[in-house]
Amino acid sequence: MAERAHLERLVALFHSSTIAQSMGIRMHYDAEERAVFELAYDGRFDHFLGDVHGGAIATLIDNAGWFAAAAGYPTWIVSVEVHVRYHEGAGKQALRAVGSVVRAGRRITSTHMEVRNASGVLVATGSGSFVVTSSPHPAG
Amino acid sequence: MAERAHLERLVALFHSSTIAQSMGIRMHYDAEERAVFELAYDGRFDHFLGDVHGGAIATLIDNAGWFAAAAGYPTWIVSVEVHVRYHEGAGKQALRAVGSVVRAGRRITSTHMEVRNASGVLVATGSGSFVVTSSPHPAG
Amino acid sequence: MAERAHLERLVALFHSSTIAQSMGIRMHYDAEERAVFELAYDGRFDHFLGDVHGGAIATLIDNAGWFAAAAGYPTWIVSVEVHVRYHEGAGKQALRAVGSVVRAGRRITSTHMEVRNASGVLVATGSGSFVVTSSPHPAG
Amino acid sequence: MAERAHLERLVALFHSSTIAQSMGIRMHYDAEERAVFELAYDGRFDHFLGDVHGGAIATLIDNAGWFAAAAGYPTWIVSVEVHVRYHEGAGKQALRAVGSVVRAGRRITSTHMEVRNASGVLVATGSGSFVVTSSPHPAG
Repeated sequence: MAERAHLERLVALFHSSTIAQSMGIRMHYDAEERAVFELAYDGRFDHFLGDVHGGAIATLIDNAGWFAAAAGYPTWIVSVEVHVRYHEGAGKQALRAVGSVVRAGRRITSTHMEVRNASGVLVATGSGSFVVTSSPHPAG
Repeated sequence: MAERAHLERLVALFHSSTIAQSMGIRMHYDAEERAVFELAYDGRFDHFLGDVHGGAIATLIDNAGWFAAAAGYPTWIVSVEVHVRYHEGAGKQALRAVGSVVRAGRRITSTHMEVRNASGVLVATGSGSFVVTSSPHPAG
Repeated sequence: MAERAHLERLVALFHSSTIAQSMGIRMHYDAEERAVFELAYDGRFDHFLGDVHGGAIATLIDNAGWFAAAAGYPTWIVSVEVHVRYHEGAGKQALRAVGSVVRAGRRITSTHMEVRNASGVLVATGSGSFVVTSSPHPAG
Repeated sequence: MAERAHLERLVALFHSSTIAQSMGIRMHYDAEERAVFELAYDGRFDHFLGDVHGGAIATLIDNAGWFAAAAGYPTWIVSVEVHVRYHEGAGKQALRAVGSVVRAGRRITSTHMEVRNASGVLVATGSGSFVVTSSPHPAG
């Protein structure tokens, strides 16, 4: 398990980002160190038919993957690629994304992500890979 | 080639979406009917190190794929999945995404997407698939 | 749950394929209707360092996805795309792939796949999507 | 450009693999250092409807990606993930896969792959990522 201080730094860093503030996304780590992201519904990130846009869903999935991966390493990690599968329309609802580690390797860590809306519908799933560097984490 | 009126409807629909307005994204089709999306840099969608966030990049790629695909069909199309490869940090710069069709089938259309920043750096590439339905397009 | 006769037809069809015979792959459905594929190790599909080649692993993942998906539909389904993540070298060991359905939609079904070697190591994971057609299944 | 001796070693290594011999796959680098793989059609790797199986296609794509990537580095590279998009049935025909580098980074290299059959039909496209290690290449 990661040190609690490391996770707290990551949580603070996320909330310090302008995207977190501009979109109104909040995050925390749950008891299993999965990265949980929540986007309240406010109608500002909808596609032209009026439900939450796939780009907002992809943003949650991207974050959920990176922060799930970052929890496991004291050094810096860099996103290689993220894959998003769209299963159901999100509706006009709050969304919750959960990212978890599938395999944490020495060079690469792989993650799984899920997004559900407030009704519990599985809106999207995702997967991603991140390269582990030897650079110190900016979060110090 | 698609009818010009169809493309104009799609362009109008995109700009009517709240995500286009909230993020300040503009789009058009170029002469080859590729879907071109432009995000001006204003610092509101940065990650915690201060460059444009991968989620904003994924939003451009998702849009570039869907609109490239939608140009080719009078009926409704639905996103199946989108894959994003991150190559270089975006920096604090405007981004431009271009989506083009790799293969337009009867049931599925596949697209390729590229994102470059204002310096011309290849920030990300992507690919996606979209299922072609027989439902009329909401754009009428 | 699918009718048992449908699953039995699919199993027979797989074993009738020349790739099943040429590579020595066997398959069955388990009690949860997951598609299970087994490749005995015989050294014929190794890469140049002498472990099972990623292409053989991808072949198992491709099959595990398609047959997991096909179990849920009486009509024909067509592979759209398959994503393979390589986690650990396979070694010189038998491999077992399991495919399960993540979401079975009206138009698209999505699957998850895992490959482990005889030692239980998670060699690869995968995901895929398949378009559901209205064409009758050749398996009748 | 890579040294010619490096490419020749890679070509020899591929042909020394048992999968190359068991499947009858040949490879070379073309003038742009793209990795070209050819699979003659002999009916041994067909799916149950009698065309070349997606797993054989994925095997070509996996190889085309890795060898395109490996050409650019003197050290060892390891496959992270490979994505395959199936566009058209391969038919009962020889297949040719071409892999090229999209971006060669210090830590990760990304590739694009295409597979066509002898009639020139675009059967599949793919993309992949490979992590660059500091380990010496077994090819010396």
